[in-house]
Amino acid sequence: MTKPLKLGMVGGGKDAFIGAVHRIASRIDGQWELVAGALSSTPERARNSAQALGLTRSYDTFGEMAVAEAALDDGIDAVAIVTPNHVHADAAIAFLQAGIHVICDKPLTATIDDANRLAQVARESDAMFILTHNYTGYPMIRQARDMIANGDLGDLRVVQVEYAQDWLAEETDGKQADWRTDPNRSGAGGSTGDIGTHAHNLAQFVTGQNVTQLAADLQAFVAGRLVDDNAHVMLRFDGGARGMLWCSQVAVGNENALRLRVYGSKGGLEWAQEDPNYLWYTPFGQPKQLLTRGGAGARDAANAVTRTPGGHPEGYLEGFANIYSGAADAIRAWNAGNRDGNGVLPGIREGLSGVYFIDACVRSSAQDAAWVTLDATP
Amino acid sequence: MTKPLKLGMVGGGKDAFIGAVHRIASRIDGQWELVAGALSSTPERARNSAQALGLTRSYDTFGEMAVAEAALDDGIDAVAIVTPNHVHADAAIAFLQAGIHVICDKPLTATIDDANRLAQVARESDAMFILTHNYTGYPMIRQARDMIANGDLGDLRVVQVEYAQDWLAEETDGKQADWRTDPNRSGAGGSTGDIGTHAHNLAQFVTGQNVTQLAADLQAFVAGRLVDDNAHVMLRFDGGARGMLWCSQVAVGNENALRLRVYGSKGGLEWAQEDPNYLWYTPFGQPKQLLTRGGAGARDAANAVTRTPGGHPEGYLEGFANIYSGAADAIRAWNAGNRDGNGVLPGIREGLSGVYFIDACVRSSAQDAAWVTLDATP
Amino acid sequence: MTKPLKLGMVGGGKDAFIGAVHRIASRIDGQWELVAGALSSTPERARNSAQALGLTRSYDTFGEMAVAEAALDDGIDAVAIVTPNHVHADAAIAFLQAGIHVICDKPLTATIDDANRLAQVARESDAMFILTHNYTGYPMIRQARDMIANGDLGDLRVVQVEYAQDWLAEETDGKQADWRTDPNRSGAGGSTGDIGTHAHNLAQFVTGQNVTQLAADLQAFVAGRLVDDNAHVMLRFDGGARGMLWCSQVAVGNENALRLRVYGSKGGLEWAQEDPNYLWYTPFGQPKQLLTRGGAGARDAANAVTRTPGGHPEGYLEGFANIYSGAADAIRAWNAGNRDGNGVLPGIREGLSGVYFIDACVRSSAQDAAWVTLDATP
Amino acid sequence: MTKPLKLGMVGGGKDAFIGAVHRIASRIDGQWELVAGALSSTPERARNSAQALGLTRSYDTFGEMAVAEAALDDGIDAVAIVTPNHVHADAAIAFLQAGIHVICDKPLTATIDDANRLAQVARESDAMFILTHNYTGYPMIRQARDMIANGDLGDLRVVQVEYAQDWLAEETDGKQADWRTDPNRSGAGGSTGDIGTHAHNLAQFVTGQNVTQLAADLQAFVAGRLVDDNAHVMLRFDGGARGMLWCSQVAVGNENALRLRVYGSKGGLEWAQEDPNYLWYTPFGQPKQLLTRGGAGARDAANAVTRTPGGHPEGYLEGFANIYSGAADAIRAWNAGNRDGNGVLPGIREGLSGVYFIDACVRSSAQDAAWVTLDATP
Repeated sequence: MTKPLKLGMVGGGKDAFIGAVHRIASRIDGQWELVAGALSSTPERARNSAQALGLTRSYDTFGEMAVAEAALDDGIDAVAIVTPNHVHADAAIAFLQAGIHVICDKPLTATIDDANRLAQVARESDAMFILTHNYTGYPMIRQARDMIANGDLGDLRVVQVEYAQDWLAEETDGKQADWRTDPNRSGAGGSTGDIGTHAHNLAQFVTGQNVTQLAADLQAFVAGRLVDDNAHVMLRFDGGARGMLWCSQVAVGNENALRLRVYGSKGGLEWAQEDPNYLWYTPFGQPKQLLTRGGAGARDAANAVTRTPGGHPEGYLEGFANIYSGAADAIRAWNAGNRDGNGVLPGIREGLSGVYFIDACVRSSAQDAAWVTLDATP
Repeated sequence: MTKPLKLGMVGGGKDAFIGAVHRIASRIDGQWELVAGALSSTPERARNSAQALGLTRSYDTFGEMAVAEAALDDGIDAVAIVTPNHVHADAAIAFLQAGIHVICDKPLTATIDDANRLAQVARESDAMFILTHNYTGYPMIRQARDMIANGDLGDLRVVQVEYAQDWLAEETDGKQADWRTDPNRSGAGGSTGDIGTHAHNLAQFVTGQNVTQLAADLQAFVAGRLVDDNAHVMLRFDGGARGMLWCSQVAVGNENALRLRVYGSKGGLEWAQEDPNYLWYTPFGQPKQLLTRGGAGARDAANAVTRTPGGHPEGYLEGFANIYSGAADAIRAWNAGNRDGNGVLPGIREGLSGVYFIDACVRSSAQDAAWVTLDATP
Repeated sequence: MTKPLKLGMVGGGKDAFIGAVHRIASRIDGQWELVAGALSSTPERARNSAQALGLTRSYDTFGEMAVAEAALDDGIDAVAIVTPNHVHADAAIAFLQAGIHVICDKPLTATIDDANRLAQVARESDAMFILTHNYTGYPMIRQARDMIANGDLGDLRVVQVEYAQDWLAEETDGKQADWRTDPNRSGAGGSTGDIGTHAHNLAQFVTGQNVTQLAADLQAFVAGRLVDDNAHVMLRFDGGARGMLWCSQVAVGNENALRLRVYGSKGGLEWAQEDPNYLWYTPFGQPKQLLTRGGAGARDAANAVTRTPGGHPEGYLEGFANIYSGAADAIRAWNAGNRDGNGVLPGIREGLSGVYFIDACVRSSAQDAAWVTLDATP
Repeated sequence: MTKPLKLGMVGGGKDAFIGAVHRIASRIDGQWELVAGALSSTPERARNSAQALGLTRSYDTFGEMAVAEAALDDGIDAVAIVTPNHVHADAAIAFLQAGIHVICDKPLTATIDDANRLAQVARESDAMFILTHNYTGYPMIRQARDMIANGDLGDLRVVQVEYAQDWLAEETDGKQADWRTDPNRSGAGGSTGDIGTHAHNLAQFVTGQNVTQLAADLQAFVAGRLVDDNAHVMLRFDGGARGMLWCSQVAVGNENALRLRVYGSKGGLEWAQEDPNYLWYTPFGQPKQLLTRGGAGARDAANAVTRTPGGHPEGYLEGFANIYSGAADAIRAWNAGNRDGNGVLPGIREGLSGVYFIDACVRSSAQDAAWVTLDATP
């Protein structure tokens, strides 16, 4: 066994939800060791958090960290960026320019300008950029992608994707709600940015088709909210499929209901994130089949990211861990001279696609849901 | 017990799916006796079908039937019209003008002109017009409507309604597919007319709000098909709710998947036609509850149309029967001098609304999904 | 179409649950017309109920009714007996001896002696005896039976059957609870008699194997209750399968949860009464399949008792109607000279098997769950 | 943050299923670092496995390991024993006698004698013994236990527990099947030992009642199999509840279907391991509630072992990790002088209870399912 890679973290101090998730995900397969961090934009908070996590090296700013770690013999192999969205670009650029691989939370950035700026740096950089669209890590999502690529569904026709939550159904305060409903920190999209990008990404990842046109009707149902908390979007894909995307953070009774349904000329697939070990597959004219992770119908693409046998459910953290372990594999290959890139893992292109998606939703909605054209391959 | 009412039928000869459904639905509660019919546009076929059903009075045309039955002392109390859509208007008009109550299958007519013509007659007629939007007959749908009217969901925000099937996923022949994909008989809408109208009606029935604007993207995925077989529609309601309607007859793996989800400021409701005895209710901030037909949380509105205790599932035919039994009640009240109308049962207004919905979808789609305004109270 | 058969009813007056169910079931397919009744053991109540139902002929006692109807030219073709259990034997005997076919609710009788006495008469009678083990009428139950008979499951190994309710979880009064917890009227079995017999019958019907040994542990959890309200039973079948039967009327959260699971060397089947349109089938080593009533995997045995297409759910009343319509077919065949008997419909043999089952449960439990041997083919 | 504890492992070499699970579980919360092992009974295989895992200290036998690690300043804090069952006792004794805490896979041992021998040592030892009945680690299982302890279900009446798999439905070879069907290595119980003990433990853990009598009917359906592959067991609990346990490794279509249902005078609870984030709760006379991990109805007992918000599913590995993290907490408390023991974690008493359960099943079945009495508090 090769030694664990060394991981740094920017953001993710005390009470941060997603930072803790990244740390667990990085540990699950034993491929990463967290050794350094700039865990908060408040230096004292950063130091306290680092101490609580037993980090040997704590920095006051990500800038210092990038420079210092790059200079160390045993500096970090990669950094996880888990700050609010508006910090992503500058932090990622600092590390990419220092030659340190970046694993960044989504969406890519809070603005189109930041996204383009970061993309430019990433393309010129001698380091990888991986975006944690973690839902692409689920085994049955990998299977769905594989089945579609294999032609099992025939020509794709209809893509229904939705992501419903209810935690913003009323005015909320608290760290999590706070920055996510502040356009200066989250970007112009509210639900579209926070969860719509996941839905958009998942649809593209699984179908292998890209959204080239959309018409979006965005709402902010909670009084005083500055960003959308619900969005209805019609989609047209470059491969001919049509679809609908619904994201909502006010759909009472939904916890984290990301759901994807894809229908083609030869079959249909249905998947729900809250029950991620199941994939429903119907070949046209035959009974519906329940494919299970680790079960009789699971294929190589799913089995490659499966740890436990069928019926021993894997969950959100294992799906997220598949991104981290995939990143470790990719970085080791990179270090060994293989510069082919991220493989199946989302990167800059997917990140740009997401930011363009948010921007297109906002622009379309501002024009009363007029169609907006997207660059399919940013 | 009052005696069963006398029912006639137009259409519904051999091999007709919906005619047989209407007949069973009329029998379930013992409120109707089928005694006369013009069961086919082909006289010989009409007679054979009548004989097979043991009907005492068979007519070659609905015109003859309307005149003859009106003249009989024991003539029919109402006629069920279960022909292809393009016949609805003329048949219904014939009976309404003869003073015979009409129970008509949906959509109201194949064209806007027919719809307006029929509506005019219906309004002037001394007979009732009832439209079998049968899904409104399900007890848990009645309960959902009651809960919303009662304010349990607070201000409605989001309405997600969909109706997915797959039986037209490939080119099909056979009587059922044949006329449904022929615009001359079904009208300009394909899936929008056949099932989209059910979804549209159900959303309005349950929410008590009407769609006033829609933007529709219609597709005909099967080569050579002249009407839509899939439709994505964004909805705006007069009470402030926003929504999405998806109907499809090419969604492989879906049999008859009509599903309604409504979210308000105080709670959410979710219902699926294929499992109609369940209604999921989440009061905001509390655990999700599974309300069951006949169960602990069932209310008067549901119990009034419930025959069996909880756990003894009622289905499609009982839901349909609730329309017929409701019609019998309404007709008896009418005959007793109460001219208040259909009560909760769909009628001309709902029929017009459905035809306008189809027309608006087709027009919107022809303009690349531009918003089209609908008359909320036709 | 042949004319409807004429039906009489014993029991089933006002407020009786199962009488109303029988009446609806008899109407659904238009094969029966209810014309006569002795609807209550209280003559005035009988007459009032008959009037409320519009019955032309009302009798004060079933004895009078049997004699009188047999003498009429247009007397009833069959009688439905829907009284409390202790009346079944005498009533059925009266009609069988009058040459009138009997459709009787389960369990067959309240006592073994009554059961044997009735069986003797039935065997010598020139009339049919049909027992409404209505759950055998569900299409997917017919399919399960057919698949097993066809060898799709290989050698049967394990049969798990359960029937859980909660309506007797506390002391209850009311007509329904009253006689069901009175051993003089219901028989020695409480939950075993009321619902355990359904579970036992269903297991035998579907597997084609008979229980030859059982060991039962019966409880009466509610203080003062004179009959069991919960039972655990281990089963051994004549074909080599082993099983478990659980029935309970105190399992809080269960409405009418009859569930059957059968596992063989080549496959497994799972079915739940509350969602009766689904049958889960797993061929060993392959993905689980969801077979649906009217769907792609439905076979002739199911389709023969199916009215609506897949996704248009049929329920409890349609399953019950399949017994009535099957009875009509059998009686017409009988009248035409075919004396082969009930076909797939439960009759005296199944009735005896049920009463012996109750008796064996009570005897086993009295001996601390010792094994008791049953006559497999009574 | 305190430093991770140091973990050793006995067994769990290449291709071992459960060893890998223990390693992941120990890593998830960052509380453990695996540093030493005797990973196989074959020394070369042990060394290769250690190298593959990057272990710094590899031993040929567990005996050497116990002595050597106890002598080291930075020796292991605890050892995980993940061998086949027949090795558990000797290995655990070696470490307990060396003063090293033991985390041992279930069942406790292969024989009663071994179990008693180990229990004796454990009671006299100055080290803790923790048994990985991992299903007790699921948050919603902790919640169920808490609700019952809190009286929410009233007096418990009925406990239905089952654990169904199908991977031994045919003759199988391979390392996993091999030792599990060899009584010399697995013990006298087949399915009863491998999975029945989990079901038995879970029922006792959640209800707080112990099984004091059981009657078991065991089968070996696959020809030539020396241990049971299916078992039906009737249960009587010391608190008055009655129950049934079914375990099977030949139930085709079941992957890892551990399911628990508990019914009391005031409510019912239902849980299924394959969908572990859900707990169904019905207060008598009210609608069923879906309690979710991290959701509105989740209580402290569940939240204390929850990492992600509702709708972000945790699974088998997180449940298992809760045992490891609980063990770390307990060991730290122990080291700090708190000798109160395992808290909620299963230990020797639960281990003995499981081995006695297997023995009682085998003895009961040998006597044709006669009742066997168990020591409720071993």
